[in-house]
Amino acid sequence: MVPACGLVTLTTDFSLTDSYVGTMKGVILRIFPEARLVDITHQVTPQDVLEASLVLEGGYRFFPAGTVHLVVVDPSVGGMRRPILIAGREHYFVGPDNGTFTRVLDSDPDALVVEIQERRFLLPNISDTFHGRDIFAPVAAFLARGIAPEEFGPAVRDARRLQVPVPRIWGDQIRGEVIHIDSFGNIISNISREQFQRAVGDRGFRVLINGKIIDRIHRTYEEQEQGRTLALFGSSDLLEIAVAEGRAERRIGAGKGDTILIQIDEGPAPVR
Amino acid sequence: MVPACGLVTLTTDFSLTDSYVGTMKGVILRIFPEARLVDITHQVTPQDVLEASLVLEGGYRFFPAGTVHLVVVDPSVGGMRRPILIAGREHYFVGPDNGTFTRVLDSDPDALVVEIQERRFLLPNISDTFHGRDIFAPVAAFLARGIAPEEFGPAVRDARRLQVPVPRIWGDQIRGEVIHIDSFGNIISNISREQFQRAVGDRGFRVLINGKIIDRIHRTYEEQEQGRTLALFGSSDLLEIAVAEGRAERRIGAGKGDTILIQIDEGPAPVR
Amino acid sequence: MVPACGLVTLTTDFSLTDSYVGTMKGVILRIFPEARLVDITHQVTPQDVLEASLVLEGGYRFFPAGTVHLVVVDPSVGGMRRPILIAGREHYFVGPDNGTFTRVLDSDPDALVVEIQERRFLLPNISDTFHGRDIFAPVAAFLARGIAPEEFGPAVRDARRLQVPVPRIWGDQIRGEVIHIDSFGNIISNISREQFQRAVGDRGFRVLINGKIIDRIHRTYEEQEQGRTLALFGSSDLLEIAVAEGRAERRIGAGKGDTILIQIDEGPAPVR
Repeated sequence: MVPACGLVTLTTDFSLTDSYVGTMKGVILRIFPEARLVDITHQVTPQDVLEASLVLEGGYRFFPAGTVHLVVVDPSVGGMRRPILIAGREHYFVGPDNGTFTRVLDSDPDALVVEIQERRFLLPNISDTFHGRDIFAPVAAFLARGIAPEEFGPAVRDARRLQVPVPRIWGDQIRGEVIHIDSFGNIISNISREQFQRAVGDRGFRVLINGKIIDRIHRTYEEQEQGRTLALFGSSDLLEIAVAEGRAERRIGAGKGDTILIQIDEGPAPVR
Repeated sequence: MVPACGLVTLTTDFSLTDSYVGTMKGVILRIFPEARLVDITHQVTPQDVLEASLVLEGGYRFFPAGTVHLVVVDPSVGGMRRPILIAGREHYFVGPDNGTFTRVLDSDPDALVVEIQERRFLLPNISDTFHGRDIFAPVAAFLARGIAPEEFGPAVRDARRLQVPVPRIWGDQIRGEVIHIDSFGNIISNISREQFQRAVGDRGFRVLINGKIIDRIHRTYEEQEQGRTLALFGSSDLLEIAVAEGRAERRIGAGKGDTILIQIDEGPAPVR
Repeated sequence: MVPACGLVTLTTDFSLTDSYVGTMKGVILRIFPEARLVDITHQVTPQDVLEASLVLEGGYRFFPAGTVHLVVVDPSVGGMRRPILIAGREHYFVGPDNGTFTRVLDSDPDALVVEIQERRFLLPNISDTFHGRDIFAPVAAFLARGIAPEEFGPAVRDARRLQVPVPRIWGDQIRGEVIHIDSFGNIISNISREQFQRAVGDRGFRVLINGKIIDRIHRTYEEQEQGRTLALFGSSDLLEIAVAEGRAERRIGAGKGDTILIQIDEGPAPVR
């Protein structure tokens, strides 16, 4: 575990339309005026915990060691789910125990998970509907200020995990799915470059999605003619379907959860 | 009055599409490079001064004492409305004198209100269309840097107030109205928990909105089955109509200004 | 050239829906933890380099001397376009060499332009699709930390320029065009106050756009009756068509690239 560095990131589904996010920042700065705050996004699809876990996964590693990542996508606020914090190898996390941190815990199985119980680190009045303000923001502030994770409550070993969709490889097929549409309309799958290369090797292949067939992988968007569909490995090394200077999501009519299939050729790899 | 703490919040109807907000931040940082800037929201409904005053009310108290709150929703920019600053018990405010600060002044009637007149605290060229950049941002920066409020101009006693809609209680009814739809689609009324409890006590009641009837108050969203409508007191302790994991605004077709009625039972309070 | 002041602004077309912007900020803060970060906008129309150059133009001058402006609107990411940085009289700029900095170079022709080549200032793995994270963010961080511009690579003299639409004045006409619709729906042309005054002088005139005729310039939005169309010079001193407390873009049905014509009267200037 590394010491906190004073940085707090925020990821929520609150949008920036209301004062909710500003209020959380106020709470943090009251407790720790030197905190440096960075938004990751506040536009997670409302109440989509799996999406929150994927967004977090895409971003947190790039922050300095000792950053506290506050993630509040919390459809069960006020109910039975526990508030937790996680002290990982290099990063801290704070949020509801609803699966948000599945990917973090997958990649850092020795991380310390603590159930937040100590009232002295929370706001005096705890509403039933806004734990982001009353519980998670103050805990993030105290963590960033240097309070040891163990101070907040007892360690727990049964943090909730989500079923993250993983691609299946059988015979000459990889069957993945669309896990995200980004703001450019790029269709992002759960098939990683490494999985693809291990299964396909030097053989030919076809990528199939919603009746569309693509038979090669480009390196950049620009290699394809403007307006044409292509497949490439994006910035998280996941297979992505794009349209050069266009929106693949509209062209192909794809959405989250749609199947994306790699059909691998039987014969020897064709010369490409 | 407490000394400025170096923090400036920003609330506007400028959205983040243009460079307007960025420009204001540049102006502040030129005058006071150590300023710490926090956005509350830039998505107030364009030119809706009442909404700005409600958003500000929901957020400002959570910030550290000595914070400067810059609020620019200014349909009459360049016209006769005065630029003002307010030095309250714990917070400072800067913006046009158009009613934005109604709720602040209601809750802090002894606050000092100053008409901004001193040209040396403004940008040298003042446009007719962007006082956020030319007047309010520099004044916020100088205030946050520690210039005394009195330096900016004469005190005034007639700051403009808006008619804020208040619920009416008569006989066995509370008649409130919808004052906000939040980004989750929750319908927020102007009926506070305290007003409700004082009028209803232990008696039964029905909440009526757009033909929909709700006969109990839940504590959390999660207590209701997914997709069903409920009433609860939200994070600002105002009565709110929600749909568990859904959007109440769409379900009920309600908008700002709609009536929300509490019909209180005549008989003794039913066992609940 | 002035020394870097530790401030970095960000302008992109990434929107705030994904973690892309947050990731870039993480990269900057890993390299330079004391960096102060300010968003200009992340809602440039996707892949619209000309719009990025206009947004930047509108905002950068208001920031302190020594600010680093990171601008990533990069449809050719991974292709042949060079990554560059610019050291101007008062400001630094980092981004792809695709015309983004046309207006900066127009107004500061002696600025030093450097092609970014030094690998030690970049992330170790450079993706083909996200140079904002892998090249531009780290370079902005090192520049803001005080590394001299010359350290990043060789000076170049052929930075790419865009054809920026300029108004044409012939005889009794000024023919300009719409270059931006702002978030209030105001229609902003490329005709500056200075160009207008020089061509029109004291004479009468009519502004024509999409069949609409306006025969005077107002000073403020408020001078016109609510809901009526007006022309004025906006906060960047460009001629703008607005609707008092409304959206001119919808009323007039105008979009970027539409012609806006000033027809100047032949006779002596009418008394107004």
